[in-house]
Amino acid sequence: MRRYSKKDFPTENIRRFLEPGPIVLVSSAYKGETNIMTMGWHMVMEFQPSLVGCIISSANHSFEMIRKSRQCAINIPTEDIAATVVKIGNSSGRDIDKFSEFGLTPTPGTHVRAPLIGECYANFECRLVDVSQVRKYNMFIFEVVKAHVATTPKVPKTIHYRGDGEFMISGATTRKYRKLFRPEML
Amino acid sequence: MRRYSKKDFPTENIRRFLEPGPIVLVSSAYKGETNIMTMGWHMVMEFQPSLVGCIISSANHSFEMIRKSRQCAINIPTEDIAATVVKIGNSSGRDIDKFSEFGLTPTPGTHVRAPLIGECYANFECRLVDVSQVRKYNMFIFEVVKAHVATTPKVPKTIHYRGDGEFMISGATTRKYRKLFRPEML
Repeated sequence: MRRYSKKDFPTENIRRFLEPGPIVLVSSAYKGETNIMTMGWHMVMEFQPSLVGCIISSANHSFEMIRKSRQCAINIPTEDIAATVVKIGNSSGRDIDKFSEFGLTPTPGTHVRAPLIGECYANFECRLVDVSQVRKYNMFIFEVVKAHVATTPKVPKTIHYRGDGEFMISGATTRKYRKLFRPEML
Repeated sequence: MRRYSKKDFPTENIRRFLEPGPIVLVSSAYKGETNIMTMGWHMVMEFQPSLVGCIISSANHSFEMIRKSRQCAINIPTEDIAATVVKIGNSSGRDIDKFSEFGLTPTPGTHVRAPLIGECYANFECRLVDVSQVRKYNMFIFEVVKAHVATTPKVPKTIHYRGDGEFMISGATTRKYRKLFRPEML
């Protein structure tokens, strides 16, 4: 599997990768254990501070690891590892070590102890900043405190879940509507 | 512009259209006025009841209309009206009537007074069920109480915003990973 070379990326611009709605991998660490889960229910909430909200079912092994460590990394996988993304979502960290089982490379972050996934196009280091909606909705609100994005390609071939085992693979990017934007809306 | 013929769709399955992350149009009505806004920050929160969370900046004319009427419709546009979607996002309901300005067809819903957009692939009638996060995050939590989805095509060509005036157009749909899912995960 390909590991991406990455550069620092401004946290206030991570909407460029999350807003199109890709499935993501959430990695975590707690008391010497690491884990990875597949997640599709997330949204950008603010540019600065860079906030992301997401739903993590309490049935997931990652739920308590993230709640207790108050950290995670949000990683953006691409089509080349789609089968691995599905396998991660269909197994539990209770039973296996997902990094070793799936041959993924844990890479140290700079601001969190949660390992970043080397084979993902982008890695967003996150601190849990608001747990007020966890009990009612399983909703976690994270601040992205550091972002790493691949130097190439310019646009990732992301995978988007449609439910029922179906994925949409990201298609062409177009700038042909850019001239219709007011400058302050860009 | 093409108007889609629609059929009723189970509200617990709307993730099939929202989870891939398309830009959506939010329509509203309050005191005889209607409006439309373009929105990219949304996520599915629960299957049943069918919950969707989203961020609506208080700078939008729609903000107070939705907060006061406690209703809206979430409409999914396709590539054929992408230019209109951008123009809707770059104008304000304070200045213009967007349905008439952009030649869109307001269609009555069955559960809300907010008009549905005939030219969109899907229309989700929404009731505002939780305003507890509006003040802090501009976050609205809606219950989808009725869903209408086009009879054809089976999969919509949706548009996904990347920021900076760029859109990703949805690509191919694949079922080749479906066999990797545990049955209860489908």
